[in-house]
Amino acid sequence: MATSRLTQQLNFILEIDKLKQVLRQTRLTDGSRRENSAEHSWHLAMMAIALQEYAPIPVDLLRVLKMLLVHDVVEIDAGDTFAFDMQANQNKAAREQHAATRLFGLLPDDLAIQLRALWNEFEAVETADAQFAKALDCLQPFLHNCQNQGGTWKEHGITRDRVLWRMQAVQYGAPALWATVQHLIDESIELGYLQ
Amino acid sequence: MATSRLTQQLNFILEIDKLKQVLRQTRLTDGSRRENSAEHSWHLAMMAIALQEYAPIPVDLLRVLKMLLVHDVVEIDAGDTFAFDMQANQNKAAREQHAATRLFGLLPDDLAIQLRALWNEFEAVETADAQFAKALDCLQPFLHNCQNQGGTWKEHGITRDRVLWRMQAVQYGAPALWATVQHLIDESIELGYLQ
Repeated sequence: MATSRLTQQLNFILEIDKLKQVLRQTRLTDGSRRENSAEHSWHLAMMAIALQEYAPIPVDLLRVLKMLLVHDVVEIDAGDTFAFDMQANQNKAAREQHAATRLFGLLPDDLAIQLRALWNEFEAVETADAQFAKALDCLQPFLHNCQNQGGTWKEHGITRDRVLWRMQAVQYGAPALWATVQHLIDESIELGYLQ
Repeated sequence: MATSRLTQQLNFILEIDKLKQVLRQTRLTDGSRRENSAEHSWHLAMMAIALQEYAPIPVDLLRVLKMLLVHDVVEIDAGDTFAFDMQANQNKAAREQHAATRLFGLLPDDLAIQLRALWNEFEAVETADAQFAKALDCLQPFLHNCQNQGGTWKEHGITRDRVLWRMQAVQYGAPALWATVQHLIDESIELGYLQ
C-alpha cells in the first residue's frame, strides 16, 4: 500500500518533466530563445519571494508558491495558450480541465485534491493569494517584453490598450506595482516597443 | 526610497533569468536535451510538495521550497559543478560564496540576508529542512538517470559505489525513500545502466 502510494508520486514527478518542453511565446530576457513553462514557473516563484510585500493584504506565501509552481502543469496536455490569442483562449478552459483531471489524477487522492483545488483557485482569481499570484504571472512576461525591445508585443502588433487590459491583474493583485507598470508602458511607447 | 527598493528587487528578478541558461549534466527524462538549473529548481520544488511526507521529522515546507528555489542561483556566476567531478568540487565552495555575495547583494538587505541564510543552510545540510531539500536534489538526477538508460552514469563511467556514496543524502534526509533508491540501483545494474 505504501509502495503503491510512492509509485503514484514518482510517476507524477516523472510525468511533469514534460513541462520543460512546453514553450511559451515569451523569450528569455536576452532574447536568445523562447522560455519554457517549467523555468517560467520557477521565475514566478522567485518573484513571489522577492515581491511578497507588494500584495495589498498579507498573503500566505506557501499557498502562493504552490499555486505558481503548479499553475502551468496542465499545459503538458493543453499546451501554452498565448495571452493575446483570442481564439485559442475560447476553448482553453475546457482543454485545461481535461488536462488537470489526467495529470493531478496521477497523484494519490489527497495530493490530487489539494493541488487541483489550488489550481482551480489560481484560475478563478478570487482570493487574495490567487490575485497576487496572477499579478506575478502577468508581470513576468511584461518585464521580459520590456527587456526584449517589445518582444511578443512587437512580433504580434499588440497595442497599448490590450497590454493595459491584460495588466489589470497587477492593478488588482499587486496595486503597489501599478505605477511602475504604467511608467514602463509609457517608456515602451516612447521607445517604439509598443504601438 | 520605496522606488529604489523596488528597483533593487526588479534588478534581482531580471538578473536571475540567467539561471535558465546554466546547463546541468543531467538530461530531461526523454533524453532530448540537457536540463537547465532553473527548470531543475522548479522540479525539485514540485518534488518537495509531492514527497513532503517522507521527511523523517516534519519539515517546514515553506522554508524547504525557498531553499530549493534559490539553491542554484549562485550558478549564474559559478556555473554548475557536476556532482561526480572531484576536481571542480575542490574550489566550488569559494566560487559559490563570491557568487552569493554578488547575486543576493542585488536585493534590499533584509531579503539578501534572508535568502543567503537559507542558501547557507542548504549548503551546510545540518537542519532537517536542509537535509530533506538536499535529499531531493540528489534524488532528482538519480531518477532522470534511471529513465535515461543510465544517463550521466554511463557517459562518465560512474560506478555503483560512487552512486551509493552520493545518495547518502537520501539516507539522511528522506530515509523512507532509501529502499526505493536501493531497488532502483539494483535494477540499473541488472539493466547495464550502472557498473
